[in-house]
Amino acid sequence: MLDYFFTPKSIAVLGASNDPLKLGYEIFKNLKGYGGKVYPINIKEETVQGVKAYKNVKDIPENVDLAVIVVPRRFVKQALIDCGEKGVKGAIIITAGFGEMGEEGKREERELVEIAHKYGMRIIGPNCVGVMDTHSNMNATFIMNAKKGSVAFVSQSGALGAGIVYKTIKEDIGFSKFISVGNMADVDFADLMEYLAEDNNSKAIALYIEGVKNGKRFMEIAKKVSKKKPIIALKAGKSESGARAASSHTGSLAGSYAIYEAAFMQSGVLVAETIDDLLSMARAFTQPLPKGKKVAIMTNAGGPGVLTADQLDKRGLKLANLKEETMEKLREFLPPMAAVKNPVDMIASARGEDYYKTAKLLLEDDNVDMLVAICVVPTFAGMTPTEHAEGIVKAVKEVNNGKPVLALFMAGYVSEKARELLEKEGIPAYERPEDVGSAAYALAAFAERNLEV
Amino acid sequence: MLDYFFTPKSIAVLGASNDPLKLGYEIFKNLKGYGGKVYPINIKEETVQGVKAYKNVKDIPENVDLAVIVVPRRFVKQALIDCGEKGVKGAIIITAGFGEMGEEGKREERELVEIAHKYGMRIIGPNCVGVMDTHSNMNATFIMNAKKGSVAFVSQSGALGAGIVYKTIKEDIGFSKFISVGNMADVDFADLMEYLAEDNNSKAIALYIEGVKNGKRFMEIAKKVSKKKPIIALKAGKSESGARAASSHTGSLAGSYAIYEAAFMQSGVLVAETIDDLLSMARAFTQPLPKGKKVAIMTNAGGPGVLTADQLDKRGLKLANLKEETMEKLREFLPPMAAVKNPVDMIASARGEDYYKTAKLLLEDDNVDMLVAICVVPTFAGMTPTEHAEGIVKAVKEVNNGKPVLALFMAGYVSEKARELLEKEGIPAYERPEDVGSAAYALAAFAERNLEV
Repeated sequence: MLDYFFTPKSIAVLGASNDPLKLGYEIFKNLKGYGGKVYPINIKEETVQGVKAYKNVKDIPENVDLAVIVVPRRFVKQALIDCGEKGVKGAIIITAGFGEMGEEGKREERELVEIAHKYGMRIIGPNCVGVMDTHSNMNATFIMNAKKGSVAFVSQSGALGAGIVYKTIKEDIGFSKFISVGNMADVDFADLMEYLAEDNNSKAIALYIEGVKNGKRFMEIAKKVSKKKPIIALKAGKSESGARAASSHTGSLAGSYAIYEAAFMQSGVLVAETIDDLLSMARAFTQPLPKGKKVAIMTNAGGPGVLTADQLDKRGLKLANLKEETMEKLREFLPPMAAVKNPVDMIASARGEDYYKTAKLLLEDDNVDMLVAICVVPTFAGMTPTEHAEGIVKAVKEVNNGKPVLALFMAGYVSEKARELLEKEGIPAYERPEDVGSAAYALAAFAERNLEV
Repeated sequence: MLDYFFTPKSIAVLGASNDPLKLGYEIFKNLKGYGGKVYPINIKEETVQGVKAYKNVKDIPENVDLAVIVVPRRFVKQALIDCGEKGVKGAIIITAGFGEMGEEGKREERELVEIAHKYGMRIIGPNCVGVMDTHSNMNATFIMNAKKGSVAFVSQSGALGAGIVYKTIKEDIGFSKFISVGNMADVDFADLMEYLAEDNNSKAIALYIEGVKNGKRFMEIAKKVSKKKPIIALKAGKSESGARAASSHTGSLAGSYAIYEAAFMQSGVLVAETIDDLLSMARAFTQPLPKGKKVAIMTNAGGPGVLTADQLDKRGLKLANLKEETMEKLREFLPPMAAVKNPVDMIASARGEDYYKTAKLLLEDDNVDMLVAICVVPTFAGMTPTEHAEGIVKAVKEVNNGKPVLALFMAGYVSEKARELLEKEGIPAYERPEDVGSAAYALAAFAERNLEV
């Protein structure tokens, strides 16, 4: 359906540039890494960044699936007509100055959509940062590559989206796709949810929303999609101040948050409170779904166990009552100072082997639906930086009984390697108790909904 | 009063070791960087890490202010007696296995306190990670140095405290002191609040609390101290599950959270919900206090402005109504697509000069009590990584009218340099809208309380 936005055979960049100060420079530079054909269109230059340029998209001797339009505003309309005549399927319009600029801009924006539909084209944008697909290795944006992962992230704020991509590179959080939707003149949240529901690379859909235009259609599609794939939404403009700010940002009224919240609930969309919340919840879905809400916590430090128990409780999850047998077996190898009641506090001396044995016993306990494995500062006494993570991974692989496992590795850069290892094995590794709490909640809430169906 | 714990003239490490697998190795290694005299005590070795060792603390030919005790549990009592006879003033007992181990351990712990008091000594610990003072450059712990800063951080969980120190190194957040209080057999939260109230290097006191032993005294001291210096507390064990987990961690009942919350409120302690919240609030106090709750937001991206407005609203702050004059002046140099109503959206093209001019106008507006300056992804179009931060700093220095300024630089590692620059100038630079919201709240709440007095 919208494949041509993510895995096009060929791409034309209208406004590709040799001037590093222009967005058309960055976009073409980013696209050069793509496996398919990428053609620069520039009315003045013979070559762009060493690649033969064309004056017009229509001059390209082959078919073009996707056009990225980054020409000045006054040329956008003609550029789009050219694309239509060329038979382009999708156009990403980066150029700003349309619907967000008031009535005149809105009129011009509608005109663009009419042109596109006349030629059977779809538009993402205008006024957006572009589209990125980490699996097809296509970066049709002017920002850096996101890390490859399984979360499809759709953002109605371009700069915020870019900021999140940059933040997540540092935090080793991966996306399947990043889609900056801009003014959503044509392709909107509903279209993208529908498309992403069928995308095997995307295990969850994360939405940053300022305002939805066609609420009824959003809800219809969300209701359908959320039955097979989790949708998590962060709605900005919750407060009156925020809503006013959003209105001056997008030019459209953001609407009462209570209405949005009710609509999300009814259509099975999970609600995030913050950006970290949005990402934490979306990232959880590399894991299988839990059969219930009973969580076991294992930790090498009491404090984080307590904070995590607080967060789970806040989110409606329960601490599992471990079977006597499990506690007895834990007692056999854990030191006397350890606590074998849930949360299981293996204390600071716990090594990789203890993580392995404890995780195994907890996963095998019938009273446990989900495991949260916590580790803090595993550096002293000759421990390796990754042995605790390795212990968890080994247990999960061995037991392999379909229970979700979330990790909380809290010591900043000290546990970076361990988190990387867990992520590589598909176990989401968080840094903050509230993030792992949100993640556990998302899995449980989606499972509950899914099991009802 | 408790100076000898933070700026001792001389330190003895009982249990200093040559064995890298022992805590006494790390502690002595860390202390070697300290300016004062540091003596290793080891019954078997002639030298420890190249420094002449003594068999007993009493053999040291000079006075000893502070002792760090990390000998095996069965030797702790005698080590403490030796310290008392030597005239040591303060003892940090790292060794675990006392009050947290049940009745017998509690009895032994009480005995330690009796010994200490008999000799006029005070004890921090036992069962703790130690004490760090970044200003005197003393690290009497077995963990890495924290970054130097102005927040005094007191943690009842050693591993969590260590995890936070590691996390904050990465995030460029600084502490004046880190104090792991362990079992609080003697020196407790109250003693430390009283001491830190007089410490010029500490602008705020951050507490991670699992349970307070003498609630009445805690409240009395907190009430007094919080009138001159902000105290921010994160109480773990809020929920029933969390409280149960805390109880199995510290061996003492954590008590109902509602009671704690009421006590905090009554004694002027600001309540944090998460670790990030605790740190965000505490870090804000490098800034002057606001005269009211009216906040101006400036941003180069709409989305973060909206999210921040939401967070401020949630925390009871207001968006300032800018004076007509201010908006007119902003209109003169900002592009037509910019929004000059609060939040002021300077849009993505805003450069350092725009940040300078806008910050100046907003600080000069009488309707504004506090400024939040937001920046996202300032890399394209030949911008330098720090020009936006420089613009803010220049405006603050020029206007210099005592209004607090908080920064929100959201693009992960892309804005790392800018955040460093702001922090160096004493402007707290946050990464998440909720953190800057908490910070603004803390300043306003503390100011409100202070102005009443």
